[in-house]
Amino acid sequence: MEVVTTIAELKEIVRKAKAEGKTIGLVPTMGYLHEGHMALAKAAREENDFIIMSIFVNPTQFGPNEDYESYPRDLERDQKIAESVGVDVVFAPSVDEMYPTDGGIRIHAGRQATILCGASRPGHFDGVLQVVTKLFHLAEPTRAYFGQKDAQQAAIISTLVRDFNFPLEIRTVPIVREEDGLAKSSRNVYLSENERKEAPAIYRGLQLAKEEFLSSKDAEKAIGVAKDYILKNTTTGRIDYIELLAYPDLKPIDDSTKQYLLAAAVFIGKTRLIDNIMFTNKGDTENV
Amino acid sequence: MEVVTTIAELKEIVRKAKAEGKTIGLVPTMGYLHEGHMALAKAAREENDFIIMSIFVNPTQFGPNEDYESYPRDLERDQKIAESVGVDVVFAPSVDEMYPTDGGIRIHAGRQATILCGASRPGHFDGVLQVVTKLFHLAEPTRAYFGQKDAQQAAIISTLVRDFNFPLEIRTVPIVREEDGLAKSSRNVYLSENERKEAPAIYRGLQLAKEEFLSSKDAEKAIGVAKDYILKNTTTGRIDYIELLAYPDLKPIDDSTKQYLLAAAVFIGKTRLIDNIMFTNKGDTENV
Repeated sequence: MEVVTTIAELKEIVRKAKAEGKTIGLVPTMGYLHEGHMALAKAAREENDFIIMSIFVNPTQFGPNEDYESYPRDLERDQKIAESVGVDVVFAPSVDEMYPTDGGIRIHAGRQATILCGASRPGHFDGVLQVVTKLFHLAEPTRAYFGQKDAQQAAIISTLVRDFNFPLEIRTVPIVREEDGLAKSSRNVYLSENERKEAPAIYRGLQLAKEEFLSSKDAEKAIGVAKDYILKNTTTGRIDYIELLAYPDLKPIDDSTKQYLLAAAVFIGKTRLIDNIMFTNKGDTENV
Repeated sequence: MEVVTTIAELKEIVRKAKAEGKTIGLVPTMGYLHEGHMALAKAAREENDFIIMSIFVNPTQFGPNEDYESYPRDLERDQKIAESVGVDVVFAPSVDEMYPTDGGIRIHAGRQATILCGASRPGHFDGVLQVVTKLFHLAEPTRAYFGQKDAQQAAIISTLVRDFNFPLEIRTVPIVREEDGLAKSSRNVYLSENERKEAPAIYRGLQLAKEEFLSSKDAEKAIGVAKDYILKNTTTGRIDYIELLAYPDLKPIDDSTKQYLLAAAVFIGKTRLIDNIMFTNKGDTENV
């Protein structure tokens, strides 16, 4: 496995892979890899000849009071993990390498970015679209892999690719969870021992809400069930949002909705965690 | 030469050309082709194996009170001209083919789009960036060709390509003029006989301003010379702007400026015409 830090090196590697007729799988990450990222790389490995993983904590998707500076980083450990799942090239640029110039052009995510995490993180998805556009142009992937855990991100990036005709496919990969149900996240490292014990209440609350919705078809009641469960079963829990929306358009549900996204953002202490469940009318929890 | 109207057809043609290892030159146009467009296609023909010309009057770059509906169109004539200059494929999609979906994501041009034509055409360059991004992703060109006549457009698109790492090169091609100096433009067809006679005053005014600036180094005085000349030598002329800026960053000129852009937008009757001259400290009129 090769590790490159410059755009020039990456472009040369991509040129060679393309010249050899290889399909390219891109796995964009912010590093501090866990089993969720490994699942993305494994999915990419199954479908493509050549796997590029980017490791870049992108400053433009963090708000001024968010955790850009403290976001966990461990490139040495990440390299070993990437190699173990068959990544061919890790692209780990500096901020200056990624953003050497700024002519002020910005991509603004639309309505899909005003709800859920977008409501409390203004500009976050604009920053995501900026960095993925750059990564798509640099790695020229056949397919790019994103986690279902960031369901809103996956939906917005899929809209970008569709409406701007990027010549690639977006694949989303199911959430990987700890044994007790907590969704794997680089931010779980922020949790104290007690917070870590309480955090699985988020997923259990979502599961109860799903059951409630499937039996009563009452979204408000279902969301209430999740909120009550989480607040009763944590000492430091604070709900940012819990919402039930249609996926992938992220519009309000109605009788025509085929796929539901039940999504939550909850502060456990000072750590903001997100999780979600996707399911159909029939109650099947489905991959997207 | 082939003419295709669907994205699916174009993508298949691009796939084949790429598989054969061909370099692709893209010439984006709004049709009603004149010698300016032909110069773009000829430049593309010299440098690339395969030439795609798009002909699409893009609604998203026209303001509500602009000439989208009346913009001249003649696809049959355009096809003959395209074929005569060695274009391999004309891509002439409908509006519905180009914009079948809208998830609300927009590209906003930055500071470079707030001046010159951007000041009186809010949103124009956002629409340009939207359509060229789509065309770049569909045609996957090695090089894309734009006219120096739309110098601000060329500068902004170059910024897009640089800051978002599009895997292609932008080429700008010198302005083609009528014998009396009027810059070739599809919009010249709007001019009455008398307006057509007066319109070359724009270019002559710019030439006089350039001479004034090179001798006095007084930008304000030079711009005054152009304005006076145009107003004195036309009966229906009205200045939108005449400005002297550094190229390609479109910032105010200073002692470090190497390349000057002297640009004008002038209404002749109801028709808004643009023109420009680019030159260096030494007075050489240079291509960019």
